[in-house]
Amino acid sequence: MITTASEIKDYFFQHIQQLQNNICQALEQVDGAQKFREDSWKRQGGGGGKTRVIENGKVFEKGGVNISEVHGELPETIKKSFGVQENQFYACGLSLVLHPLNPFVPTTHCNYRMFELYDDGGNCVRRWFGGGADMTPYYLFPEDAVHFHTTLKNALEVHGPKYYPEFKKKCDEYFVNHHRSGETRGIGGVFYDYVDGDGEDWKSVLQMHLDSSESFLPSYLPIVERRKDLPYTEENKVWQEIRRGRYVEFNLVHDRGTLFGLKTNGRTESILMSLPSTVRWKYDHHPDPGTPESDLVEHLKPIDWINYKKQ
Amino acid sequence: MITTASEIKDYFFQHIQQLQNNICQALEQVDGAQKFREDSWKRQGGGGGKTRVIENGKVFEKGGVNISEVHGELPETIKKSFGVQENQFYACGLSLVLHPLNPFVPTTHCNYRMFELYDDGGNCVRRWFGGGADMTPYYLFPEDAVHFHTTLKNALEVHGPKYYPEFKKKCDEYFVNHHRSGETRGIGGVFYDYVDGDGEDWKSVLQMHLDSSESFLPSYLPIVERRKDLPYTEENKVWQEIRRGRYVEFNLVHDRGTLFGLKTNGRTESILMSLPSTVRWKYDHHPDPGTPESDLVEHLKPIDWINYKKQ
Repeated sequence: MITTASEIKDYFFQHIQQLQNNICQALEQVDGAQKFREDSWKRQGGGGGKTRVIENGKVFEKGGVNISEVHGELPETIKKSFGVQENQFYACGLSLVLHPLNPFVPTTHCNYRMFELYDDGGNCVRRWFGGGADMTPYYLFPEDAVHFHTTLKNALEVHGPKYYPEFKKKCDEYFVNHHRSGETRGIGGVFYDYVDGDGEDWKSVLQMHLDSSESFLPSYLPIVERRKDLPYTEENKVWQEIRRGRYVEFNLVHDRGTLFGLKTNGRTESILMSLPSTVRWKYDHHPDPGTPESDLVEHLKPIDWINYKKQ
Repeated sequence: MITTASEIKDYFFQHIQQLQNNICQALEQVDGAQKFREDSWKRQGGGGGKTRVIENGKVFEKGGVNISEVHGELPETIKKSFGVQENQFYACGLSLVLHPLNPFVPTTHCNYRMFELYDDGGNCVRRWFGGGADMTPYYLFPEDAVHFHTTLKNALEVHGPKYYPEFKKKCDEYFVNHHRSGETRGIGGVFYDYVDGDGEDWKSVLQMHLDSSESFLPSYLPIVERRKDLPYTEENKVWQEIRRGRYVEFNLVHDRGTLFGLKTNGRTESILMSLPSTVRWKYDHHPDPGTPESDLVEHLKPIDWINYKKQ
């Protein structure tokens, strides 16, 4: 472990690189058919990234596991929106979206990042951590939602009781299709941003963030293993594609990261790797009451999954 | 024809209702298999609309022809964005999007609307007309683009030489996927907004607007007739679905009308009827040079279609 705060960024970026390797390796293994392809890109102004995408796999119809490390002059628009005067910044992170082929395997997203801001002498004056993981099923298996939330909670709870409840609430509030009567994108998870990493307790906060990022694979992979070979019908697939439409709507209409990237000249293909491969919109489609499809929709709201009892 | 400006709104709304009937009738006739279904809706605060949708037709995979007439208290956010103090408004319009099944038939959109603003005595202090039509082919037939633009131009030119060049330029500037290296949504058309309808020449401006709205069917229908029975392959369909992805991106990321509707509690299903039925995203997909697919992409920029000569 590191001893001074100035080492955090190199340490965290190394962690992110290792995490990208581990996650991709584990996903390739469970997929069994396809490998990730990698595109490296450079950013004008400083830094770049590695986008890894898998398509047409046996388990994953489309997915991306991206890392980026960018630095340099902080754009005026961001200075305004952050309310800061400093000119130099550093940011790095890992961002993942997986769209499985089988409608009984949930889509998932996670993201772990850090940000530093420097004064003109090059001293770090702010450090923020952000991240989280959330899951978007097409059919609800309550035990999967319970497993996902419990795994995320256990990883955070080691570092104090406050993290999970706070981050779970933030997730429920953020991933909402406000234009769809407040329907949540999925069954939630955890989400956090602007977590201070420059106080006296930076070691503990950093460790929370690292453990949070390590909890993604064990929260999600067992669910994939459980559901990936379930037989499904054409109707199940159509329902998945309709629900994927809501995913697209959230990402393009509401997601701050996506819109920020698209409007500040980010690498469009790396940003929009989050969109599913096949998607469908039907006019005013509502599943029949009492069906598994309608059961899912009824659960797209904040739910205390840790203490969930089936009605 | 009417004699006083206060009659405009009733006259125009009647026109819009008639236009919805005429357009739907013509489209049902060319489709030959499916009819529009109608949903009437009311708006809290005043007014409502009639949404007509066609799905799974022989020619039209999905399409909507909607009218609405809304009035009442002007929301604070709109007062701010318009920079006005008045409290009462009236707006009505027709909005159409058609997504054909056959990839050789272009998608199209048109929209004709008016807006009035009243002082506390109920006197109309502003009147604006807006509208236009644009076309989004998946395969380029230059003669179709020429026909589309020529028909729109001829309808406007009766009312003066300035309209077509100005509205054509506005269309090229508006329907742009800025996050896709400035690629236009399609081959353009005409687009206008905030055209004053309260000056001394209101009769002439109103007539321009009416004729503009009447030019949609003759600009588009002959193209449908020409292309609807062309044989196509699975590959053509996949290409259409990939390009439809760009249509979704424009509507959800950039289109002011869509975002305004979604963020001010509009009727979501009526707004998002503009989204195609089946859509596809492939990571970093580029058509091979020299193919018809690549030929289309090379034409997604402002082009003087009226004087177009094939290279």
